[in-house]
Amino acid sequence: MSAGTPRWDGLITGISLATLDGAGYGEIPDAALGWQNGRIVYVGPRADLPAPEDTLADQVIEASGWITPGLVDCHTHVVFAGDRAREFEMRLQGESYEAIARAGGGILSTVRAVRAASEDELLAQSLPRAKALVADGVTTLEIKSGYGLDLANERKMLRVARRIGEVLGIEVRTTYLAAHALPPEFSDDADGYIDAVLEWLPMLHGEGLIDAVDAFCEGIGFTPAQTRRVFEAAHTHGLPVKLHADQLSDLGGAGLVAEFDGLSADHVEYTSAESVQAMAGHGTVAVLLPGAFHVLRETKLPPLDAFREHGVPMAVATDCNPGTAPLLSLRQAMQLACTHFRLTPEEALRGATVHAARALGLDDRGVLKVGARADFVLWDIGHPAELGYWLGGRLCLGVFAGGRLIA
Amino acid sequence: MSAGTPRWDGLITGISLATLDGAGYGEIPDAALGWQNGRIVYVGPRADLPAPEDTLADQVIEASGWITPGLVDCHTHVVFAGDRAREFEMRLQGESYEAIARAGGGILSTVRAVRAASEDELLAQSLPRAKALVADGVTTLEIKSGYGLDLANERKMLRVARRIGEVLGIEVRTTYLAAHALPPEFSDDADGYIDAVLEWLPMLHGEGLIDAVDAFCEGIGFTPAQTRRVFEAAHTHGLPVKLHADQLSDLGGAGLVAEFDGLSADHVEYTSAESVQAMAGHGTVAVLLPGAFHVLRETKLPPLDAFREHGVPMAVATDCNPGTAPLLSLRQAMQLACTHFRLTPEEALRGATVHAARALGLDDRGVLKVGARADFVLWDIGHPAELGYWLGGRLCLGVFAGGRLIA
Ligand SMILES: [Zn+2]
Ligand SMILES: [Zn+2]
Repeated sequence: MSAGTPRWDGLITGISLATLDGAGYGEIPDAALGWQNGRIVYVGPRADLPAPEDTLADQVIEASGWITPGLVDCHTHVVFAGDRAREFEMRLQGESYEAIARAGGGILSTVRAVRAASEDELLAQSLPRAKALVADGVTTLEIKSGYGLDLANERKMLRVARRIGEVLGIEVRTTYLAAHALPPEFSDDADGYIDAVLEWLPMLHGEGLIDAVDAFCEGIGFTPAQTRRVFEAAHTHGLPVKLHADQLSDLGGAGLVAEFDGLSADHVEYTSAESVQAMAGHGTVAVLLPGAFHVLRETKLPPLDAFREHGVPMAVATDCNPGTAPLLSLRQAMQLACTHFRLTPEEALRGATVHAARALGLDDRGVLKVGARADFVLWDIGHPAELGYWLGGRLCLGVFAGGRLIA
Repeated sequence: MSAGTPRWDGLITGISLATLDGAGYGEIPDAALGWQNGRIVYVGPRADLPAPEDTLADQVIEASGWITPGLVDCHTHVVFAGDRAREFEMRLQGESYEAIARAGGGILSTVRAVRAASEDELLAQSLPRAKALVADGVTTLEIKSGYGLDLANERKMLRVARRIGEVLGIEVRTTYLAAHALPPEFSDDADGYIDAVLEWLPMLHGEGLIDAVDAFCEGIGFTPAQTRRVFEAAHTHGLPVKLHADQLSDLGGAGLVAEFDGLSADHVEYTSAESVQAMAGHGTVAVLLPGAFHVLRETKLPPLDAFREHGVPMAVATDCNPGTAPLLSLRQAMQLACTHFRLTPEEALRGATVHAARALGLDDRGVLKVGARADFVLWDIGHPAELGYWLGGRLCLGVFAGGRLIA
């Protein structure tokens, strides 16, 4: 380092790196990682450091294990109130998700609990879940609204999402999902509810609460025509879109969101060949949610080989929600993706980093390279494949976001 | 308390209890739990405590959450060396467990690593896994040998198992599983290997290293006739038996182990109706291992309804092993049992406590009642059903074994 160059804020050595920069894991044995002002300034072999270690950085950490990019959980409903343990037991007595929804249970029981909670109560109930995700390696967290279903309560959810980011020192990306379910006050008037959703959108966007717009396009959700209205409004306000698409049936949702240059189509179990091609053409990421697949004991696999053939990036997310995906760890979603969807561990890791960042429209993270955000995780493992292998355990030794140790 | 009665060692209040004593969860709200000399001396409503709390115990803990009995992991292979990440990736490329075994991979790669490790190295590699199990609520841990496959290395494994119990302050129950796989030096001579297994048995038993005897009865393991020889020798030495039975095919293994009044038949996916009846008649527990079922993507369910009908107790265990069950949490095995086997959360919890204790021949734990060991876990949950619900997360607030806080 030349004289006068500012010292780095931190340098970690003795570790192996899985940079995910380029093909494969991007493995660098006996490596070093340096950062300054929240960005990575060095990633490479320890032997190639430009000067003696103790002159390079204010803080030099000697460690062992593997470092990966910080995990990006690109699809969660982690802000909610109440509990659905009784519904869980109901499903184990044979009730279907759709039957529970039609009986007024499911999402609407969570809506009632969210509406009844104050903003502080909602934060207090949601924060431990977000903390659990961070404790297992998440440094960027997407959080959706969609259990408020009126202006005040959608606002409350999005405000809580932002506060979670501040409290935990991570970046939270908020997604407006008012078109998640039909609230009781609009029963039999889905189009009228969409009118309201579109009226609230610019208000909440004006308050800085919306990073992207989502909807639930499904037989038990909203129609493609209603979804299209939501997307058109989002584009009017300059907001990117994503979609809960083709989870239980093929309504062409993934193709629809691709048509709007959508960031991602999520679930995608029933996505058609035509929709896969549309996604490839528009750069839309396929977000795989193996937690819901697991809990609902689905058997219809997403068109994984078609995604691979057409170069559609596959992300992996927890979908953390009380009804169908009780996942408090993105690493466990990776395990389920390897087991149920036969992703290789490397595909699963790329899906929870590089491709997940892309599903949020973020290009400054998800890989370890100079200039990227200093978001990284130190793992107590012998090989990165273990991140898709173990169920349970405490593999995570340290989580850094913007160069700060946060867990 | 009358004058002169010794004070209890500890008392915890403010919690709800799931005692599992009797039918259902055995719920006691606003409860108290007291212990002395490692045994439970009070379990019941806080309001019914016999004297003011601060006069009752040396240590009074005010907490919130739920307390369950300490979890009993009644089937593990947690002592091993080496790593099987490459094999994990192989399986994701489509290789079957049997094909990998026939190709000399699988168990034998772990055998090579175990033989190459010193006792201290084997302890150092195994201890973090046992610690992870304890950190998620395990207070009694069964550990099998079976990767040594010669006298010195089976002894080494069993000694490491005992040392794990001492280091972690839990009770470890050791199971002699030399009849796990055929070592290379006996290839083509399974009967000769069984001769050796039976020669080592009394030696290791004489060293206090064996609590029970197990075998792997399967097309790729040992025959029922060879298994019978192992069981006869075990009985000669006064040792109870259990069996890896009917995992991949029905060789009548569960019926065979029942005939020997076996503690448990484990796996039992292919167990026949006749074998279920034999198990019921001899009090043999069915140990469900949903982790291997999950990772191998099996579809043949154990005869769960037949077990229920005939009153065969169902236990749930991790089967923690590097090849087919990379589980570091018994709670996650419970989740898999609920999801894959449709156990209710209460069945899964009973399976990881009461019935698991019975699968180890232990009648002093697995329930919260006066006189039982003071093994219990404090959980950060709103209802015990959550223990079968969440994947990931840190729900465990404290683990007590014999009244001592160990995690
Ligand atoms: Zn979702
Ligand atoms: Zn086993």
